[in-house]
Amino acid sequence: MPVHHHIFTLATRGQATYEITDEVARAVRASGIRDGTATVFVRHTSCSLIIFENADPSAQTDLLAYFERLVPENAPYFVHTLEGADDMPSHLRMVLTRTSEVIPVIDARLALGSWQGVFLFEHRRAPHRREIVVTVMGET
Amino acid sequence: MPVHHHIFTLATRGQATYEITDEVARAVRASGIRDGTATVFVRHTSCSLIIFENADPSAQTDLLAYFERLVPENAPYFVHTLEGADDMPSHLRMVLTRTSEVIPVIDARLALGSWQGVFLFEHRRAPHRREIVVTVMGET
Amino acid sequence: MPVHHHIFTLATRGQATYEITDEVARAVRASGIRDGTATVFVRHTSCSLIIFENADPSAQTDLLAYFERLVPENAPYFVHTLEGADDMPSHLRMVLTRTSEVIPVIDARLALGSWQGVFLFEHRRAPHRREIVVTVMGET
Repeated sequence: MPVHHHIFTLATRGQATYEITDEVARAVRASGIRDGTATVFVRHTSCSLIIFENADPSAQTDLLAYFERLVPENAPYFVHTLEGADDMPSHLRMVLTRTSEVIPVIDARLALGSWQGVFLFEHRRAPHRREIVVTVMGET
Repeated sequence: MPVHHHIFTLATRGQATYEITDEVARAVRASGIRDGTATVFVRHTSCSLIIFENADPSAQTDLLAYFERLVPENAPYFVHTLEGADDMPSHLRMVLTRTSEVIPVIDARLALGSWQGVFLFEHRRAPHRREIVVTVMGET
Repeated sequence: MPVHHHIFTLATRGQATYEITDEVARAVRASGIRDGTATVFVRHTSCSLIIFENADPSAQTDLLAYFERLVPENAPYFVHTLEGADDMPSHLRMVLTRTSEVIPVIDARLALGSWQGVFLFEHRRAPHRREIVVTVMGET
């Protein structure tokens, strides 16, 4: 069975969502695999992956506002504070979302719904270089 | 390596959990695959998937009550409001749960624990038709 | 395509995170698979899996403190209460984290980032025996 890995880096510029659907789709096309799965994996503990509405940017705005309230900075009981006020919230926001997303590949295409996009969800304020692995497996 | 996709639709009737374990198990049997994985994927951004207690319906009741409080409707800071008061909460409840679940297949059966069921978690009030893809991969 | 399952049990001693990265890595080595994926799956509904910071134990402390607040015991609206005050919160904490984690296998190794560890996240206070399945698939 063929396995195809595609590794790429993404430069983030603060807390936001960054769509990576096209890059994942390219990895699927390059793999030559017609049917199987694409696993997207992020190799970090202060950013995460989500599949989310990609049509209306206002949904992304509300997502960020919601997570700011759900996991506040400077909670009085936090003890893991040496790496900055946005570090521990990053780990918690990551735990509440995902490190990997698995998407079926059908007829050599990602089987996403009409409004689904794959996003890196950056939780740190400072710029970071984030490494993402796409593993496509299946039959050609 | 054989790959078997099974695509089905589920008609939902409002905010609730809908068990789909039997349909996923049928896809595994139909695939002829003995060992591998079953990936369940939902092609939408306002419903999600969970693996959850399937023995006692009171756990489902509390799940819904909890998510109503965790992600309230009409948060004053929401700007994505054109599609109804239950739309933005749907996207957030989806982000906090899952778009795919991956389950081992051992001896041609889903390796779920005794109390685990696979559920579609519908976050919209209006009836919807939801499309679910089950991808079974492995060895026969 | 080779598929290798490794099933093991972990004895938990109350609400905490238990690192299982080494056991998952051993399953990958034993499989003889060079490229593919490792799927880690927990067969229970009151504990879960996370990929989390494994360098600084204070991050684990804050994780537990945060989840105690995010999903409190004895919420006045809970009806699923017969199995103890920590039971329903367990199911909700599980829904907010994961039942499976999928990790790429590259050159016969887990492609985890420097600070990523795989953890069982136990949500019950009493000791439990937890069954975990690691399924490694790919090409040798």
